[in-house]
This record gives sequence, structure tokens and C-alpha cells, in this order.
Amino acid sequence: MTEDFTEEEKKGLYKAIYSRRDVRSHFTSRSIDDDILARILNAAHHAPSVGFSQPWNFILIKEMITKKKIKNSFEQEKSRSSKLIEEPKRSKYLSFKLEGILESPINLCVTYDPTKFGPFVIGRTSIPEAGLYSVCCAVQNLWLAARTEGIGLGWVSILSNDALKEVLELPEHVVPIAYLCLGYVDEFAQKPDLETAGWLPRLDLKDVVYFEKWQDTENTEWNQIQEMIKTNLDYA
Amino acid sequence: MTEDFTEEEKKGLYKAIYSRRDVRSHFTSRSIDDDILARILNAAHHAPSVGFSQPWNFILIKEMITKKKIKNSFEQEKSRSSKLIEEPKRSKYLSFKLEGILESPINLCVTYDPTKFGPFVIGRTSIPEAGLYSVCCAVQNLWLAARTEGIGLGWVSILSNDALKEVLELPEHVVPIAYLCLGYVDEFAQKPDLETAGWLPRLDLKDVVYFEKWQDTENTEWNQIQEMIKTNLDYA
Repeated sequence: MTEDFTEEEKKGLYKAIYSRRDVRSHFTSRSIDDDILARILNAAHHAPSVGFSQPWNFILIKEMITKKKIKNSFEQEKSRSSKLIEEPKRSKYLSFKLEGILESPINLCVTYDPTKFGPFVIGRTSIPEAGLYSVCCAVQNLWLAARTEGIGLGWVSILSNDALKEVLELPEHVVPIAYLCLGYVDEFAQKPDLETAGWLPRLDLKDVVYFEKWQDTENTEWNQIQEMIKTNLDYA
Repeated sequence: MTEDFTEEEKKGLYKAIYSRRDVRSHFTSRSIDDDILARILNAAHHAPSVGFSQPWNFILIKEMITKKKIKNSFEQEKSRSSKLIEEPKRSKYLSFKLEGILESPINLCVTYDPTKFGPFVIGRTSIPEAGLYSVCCAVQNLWLAARTEGIGLGWVSILSNDALKEVLELPEHVVPIAYLCLGYVDEFAQKPDLETAGWLPRLDLKDVVYFEKWQDTENTEWNQIQEMIKTNLDYA
């Protein structure tokens, strides 16, 4: 099993990557069938994990009372964080819709349990954060799978982890990594909302790629790919 | 643009997810063409990022002198970590091949720069680690894209971050997140190496999914999906 992807299969992966959006609005009331939900959870569960520790858990939430508690934490954190910036940025920030907690039919908290298969986990003895990293890879799998199913996903990070732990009754050692809102949407935006709003621009690929060491963009051993990425090809 | 994936395109995404492996051996000497390399880097660059901060950089490495320094760090860390476990696990651990630093044609360090577009980054004011999480999503995009191109990738986390910072001349504030080995392979294993070796089993999906709160596996509002995931469907 090596290069066994058809062109259309390859296209499917790249299409998921380029058309995936962080969705805060456009959720419809259509519910997600259990078999689709199981399928995207299984995709998440097949993420890479350090030492095969599979340190993730997925807490599915649809109770409105829970959603409202989380939304309350969001409002508090958004208000608090808005004081960190000056006008006119503050008003612009406050005007953004940054979550879809109540509107999305399913909320999902993805957590990290460092004790799973521990304490000795292969590959986690030098960089303990590697366990967290595995959970993030699971989130990205889930996000891409949801996208191919036509399901929007929004990651809400303007939340207090203490509030999440209390509301979801997480043990002390378990870390909430991602709070996600899922649901069918009537539209996936062409571009990220913050790009469209002029908040920040998409960086050029050439500005994030270095050669052999930090900030080296001119290494002559790599000049062919340097020229290639300067043309800013659109692979989408 | 909503449910616009063909069955084959969907299949491509799931196939990438289920056939992706953490590759430590099987690398061939075939070099990776620049256009393929640019394509998978661009896929990584289109990961989600908190507040659209795009806080990643990609350092491509092919100089053997650099690879040897990194390999040296790996050997030191593996030896050190082996002292954390007792026999017979220690010998088994030491027998595993856990990196392909020298054999893979391209090494790639993916880094996190918290100062990019900072200090105020939308969504990073309550959970500062959200910046790290974005970089991990980029790694997973890259991994899946590489898989569809027939390129193996191995994430080496038995390394000293201090060594990585010194060798790659990273500034103090930049965090190495992932050190990756890339190259064509003559085989992708059917299962994770650590599963095949009997080190750890694959968990059942039903054992990582909870309902409404931590460790609730019996919530009657979710009994349909509970039954479904107990059958341990193979979506691969």
C-alpha cells in the first residue's frame, strides 16, 4: 500500500483542507444522524497519538442547560478580554460573532487525560506536551471529517477552563483542549471570517517556510522550491 | 457550498485518516519533488489557527550535519528515558525503532511563534495554549496530505527541545512543536507499530466517548449512538 490514492480521492483530502472553516453562524436546525456522528468521532479516534496512548475523550453535549452555562463563561471571557485592547479595535472585536454554542445542535468537548496508559508513555518522556499535541491532531481529523459530511464546526476558545471543568465534572488531572460546536450549515464561507473582516491577512507560504535553520529563506541548496513558493500557487 | 463532496472524495479523506501511519522505517532513497513538498506545506499552512494568527513556521532540513546533531539528541533522550522503566519493558522499548532521522530525505521542524500578530490574538486570551493547538492542527494537515501523496511521515518526540533550539538557531520565544521525518516509503503498515508489537491495544470508540459530562456512558438521551458505537463498526 503506497501511492494508492486516485486523483479524486486525493482531491477529496485537499478539498476538505481548503474548504474547512471555523463556523460561528449559518447553523441550521437539522440534526446530525448518529451514524454520521459516530463516523466523525471514529475519524478523530484514529488520529496519531504519542506512544499510541490515545489520551483523548469526547464528551457529547446537547442539554441546553449545559450549553447555557458554557455560553455564560464565553460572555464573561469575551467581556474580560475586550478590555485588553483599545478602540477602535475593541468595538470591532466585540462586534464579531465568535461562537455558535446555543444554535449548534451538538457541542463537543475534547479532553486530554495524561494518566491514560501512563505514567511511562513512549515519546512523552522528553516533551511532556506531546500528549496535548495528540489530542489536537484528533480535533483536526474530526474537523476535516465533519467538513466532508457537510457539517460545520466552530472551536470556541474564549472560555474558562475552570468553568469547563466544573460544568462537565472533569477530574482535576483532565485538561479540556477543545470546545466545539457542530451542526449542518447553510453555507461554508469562501474565506476565514477574520480574513474577510480585514482583521488579519492570510500570510504567504514563502513567509512561513525556512531552510535548514530559523529565518533562512535564501539557502541556495533549496532555490528551486524557494522560487516555486514565491509564485504563491493556489492549490485549493 | 455545503454537502458538495462526492463519495470518492469523502472516501479519500477517510482513507487518508485510516491509512496514515507514524513511519520509522521503510523509507526509500527517492527524493520528494519540490512541487509535492510545496503542496503538502501549503496544506499545513491552511490549518485552522486561533484568531487567524497562523503562528507556525516550517524549517526544511536536508543537511546531514544537522540531522546527525538531532539524531544525537534522540539517542541521548532515548537512553535517559529507558531508565524510567523496568525490565522486561525496558529491553522491549530499547528494541523499537522510533525514528528515521538519517534515512528520510527531508526532516522538517514545525515551530510555534507566540509573538506573531500578537500580543492580542482573538481566542488566545483565556487559554494561551490555543496557539500551540493551531500548530498541531497544521501538523495533522501535513501528515494527511503527505499520506495521499504516498509520502511517509514520522514524528520524533524523543528529543530535547533545548537541543532543537540550539541546532536550528531558534529565538528564545519560539517553541519547537514537531520534528518530522518525511520520505517515500515502500510500505505503510496495516496497523500502528506499537499495536502490532503488542505494546498497547487500540481502544474501542465506546470507551472514549462520554455523554453530557465526564464518564457518563449511559445517558438515556443518547442510547441510540451508544448502541451503535458498541458494535465497534469499522469505518476504515
